[in-house]
Amino acid sequence: NNYFKIAVLPGDGIGPEVVSESMKVLEAVEEVFHCRFQFSYGLMGAEAIFKTGDPLPEETLKICKDSDAVLFGAIGDPVFDNNPEAKVRPEQGLLKLRKELGLYANIRPLKTYASLIDKSPLKREIIEGTDIQIFRELVSGIYFGEKFTDPDGKYAYDVCKYSTEDIIPIAHMAFKEAEKRKKKLTLIDKANVLDTSRLWRKTCQKIAIQYPDVQLDYIFVDNAAMQLVLNPKQFDVILTENMFGDIISDEASVIGGSIGLLPSASIGEENALFEPIHGSYPQAKGKGVANPVASILSTAMMLDYLELTEAADKLRRAVEHAIENRYVTVDLNSEQHYSTSEVGSFIADYI
Amino acid sequence: NNYFKIAVLPGDGIGPEVVSESMKVLEAVEEVFHCRFQFSYGLMGAEAIFKTGDPLPEETLKICKDSDAVLFGAIGDPVFDNNPEAKVRPEQGLLKLRKELGLYANIRPLKTYASLIDKSPLKREIIEGTDIQIFRELVSGIYFGEKFTDPDGKYAYDVCKYSTEDIIPIAHMAFKEAEKRKKKLTLIDKANVLDTSRLWRKTCQKIAIQYPDVQLDYIFVDNAAMQLVLNPKQFDVILTENMFGDIISDEASVIGGSIGLLPSASIGEENALFEPIHGSYPQAKGKGVANPVASILSTAMMLDYLELTEAADKLRRAVEHAIENRYVTVDLNSEQHYSTSEVGSFIADYI
Ligand SMILES: CC(C)[C@H](C(=O)O)[C@@H](O)C(=O)O
Ligand SMILES: CC(C)[C@H](C(=O)O)[C@@H](O)C(=O)O
Repeated sequence: NNYFKIAVLPGDGIGPEVVSESMKVLEAVEEVFHCRFQFSYGLMGAEAIFKTGDPLPEETLKICKDSDAVLFGAIGDPVFDNNPEAKVRPEQGLLKLRKELGLYANIRPLKTYASLIDKSPLKREIIEGTDIQIFRELVSGIYFGEKFTDPDGKYAYDVCKYSTEDIIPIAHMAFKEAEKRKKKLTLIDKANVLDTSRLWRKTCQKIAIQYPDVQLDYIFVDNAAMQLVLNPKQFDVILTENMFGDIISDEASVIGGSIGLLPSASIGEENALFEPIHGSYPQAKGKGVANPVASILSTAMMLDYLELTEAADKLRRAVEHAIENRYVTVDLNSEQHYSTSEVGSFIADYI
Repeated sequence: NNYFKIAVLPGDGIGPEVVSESMKVLEAVEEVFHCRFQFSYGLMGAEAIFKTGDPLPEETLKICKDSDAVLFGAIGDPVFDNNPEAKVRPEQGLLKLRKELGLYANIRPLKTYASLIDKSPLKREIIEGTDIQIFRELVSGIYFGEKFTDPDGKYAYDVCKYSTEDIIPIAHMAFKEAEKRKKKLTLIDKANVLDTSRLWRKTCQKIAIQYPDVQLDYIFVDNAAMQLVLNPKQFDVILTENMFGDIISDEASVIGGSIGLLPSASIGEENALFEPIHGSYPQAKGKGVANPVASILSTAMMLDYLELTEAADKLRRAVEHAIENRYVTVDLNSEQHYSTSEVGSFIADYI
């Protein structure tokens, strides 16, 4: 199969700019690797609220369900961030999309780039050689449990619920990845306090029997938040629940000093979505300063998912080539820098 | 009043060693500042389980309730950490004690010490001058909400519940502290996802009216986990709920590079408990290498609480004197170092 339907959700802020560089790169891939991408656009986020009143219009959902993969930019707009009372919010669109597409595993690879290591807030000797793969459960836990605020505004609650069925698929995915890497899997939880964490531990312990080569470690989330800064190299593959994953993966993303480079994949049984981990940076919108690399590397993860492995590898080499040659946006080099679209074209040309 | 009843809970691991240095220092305070401390010991944690089967025996609770303040060492033992199935665990004792004493506010001051700054995993320019005060809610939220694991082990849940009554007292405390400092309070939450976080925001917004000088900011917990590493100096007073506070305050504790120095206070309407933020470090037990400073600075917080302000200030100066003169334990200087008890005596002598 060399024909793929790609749903494109540019979203808010710098989302459209970086996604359009990904599409430029995919057009180069089409030429060289003899495949075809058919793009269908969908509205999502603040953009969608402004135009339709709905952060995830039915049509967008349909386009995504019909696609082989979803390319997503970013969501979020200060109009909503500064108004906690807003009833309709961009984030609802993203959460609903994750749930509807069953994207149960959010995967974030974290690497340091030799030429960028000095941009990190952490010391070189602490981070050099860090190579972590985070698996965050994405469609259960406190994000999707029952929520309630009493009408008088006197109390509220959020329920964190997990069943073994929510845990098993992503645990297998993480164990399989650990088998391919250093055979070390770390489960982050709070099993000294939470029943759901103890369920995660027991479930993972059982699954571990099927992966005798992989060493399964546990670490409490508070300690993990410390260890990621003290000694990130101790981690290889990390597995964790939704809320802890949100916090820990964002914390980990600053290690390399180059958040503008970090991609992510959200994978389900039948669908998959690829997005840079950075946000919508409304301040940078339309200025041509956004770094397209995170979106382009997310596109490489998409190519892997579509089993276009050669193209994915080529794309990653193209990105490394650009970084090594300091052909980068202003976030990575304030002296000599190129625009979003120049960096995208440089990478596309290399392909 | 110059007579105080102090409950002493040495606990596990290095707890007893560091607490006994605090008592040594308090004896020096008695001489110089004309006050009396009457110490009553209680069992807690693994130690208490081994001896009585209960991590918080009734007698210990009674001693604590009768006291003017509680000095606490640390809990935790590998016997329990390595056995997630253990029904009775040391942590239960601590959680029960917090609840029974109504210790709703956990306060952690974080400072960098000029002479120790190079021990931090973060770069000097990132952390120099960091001075943060964290207020973590300690007796509600997901720690104390309903918990359930179904008998077949198929699912589990933990409920995060907050009422405005749980939020109001600690919010006032944090606003008051902000008034005394840089007039900037940051609430860390996840209001784009959680109903309880929205309740925190609304409640704090209302309280803010009573503190017109204080600027109240909000930041999502995932972003906060990033910002603490990227630019900790942007924070002054932080307020947050129980679980986020557990994660964020441990993350923040590594900024200064000297976790062996960090004290904490847990305050309620009628009781208060003081403990170093470091754990029980069972590997170091009995070797005389534990740093007593975190426990001693917790003792200074206790003296403040008992309104022995002069003594508290003197104690802090004594600690600074020891650090400036490199009269420290091995964690802070691997070349020339002193034992736990030598450092405690040096500080006591200075007083
Ligand atoms: C926008 C928000 C709801 C989302 C989350 O918390 O999952 C974001 O922080 C992320 O990590 O993708
Ligand atoms: C021991 C544990 C239950 C405790 C907590 O999570 O509150 C500890 O991590 C702390 O922060 O004091």
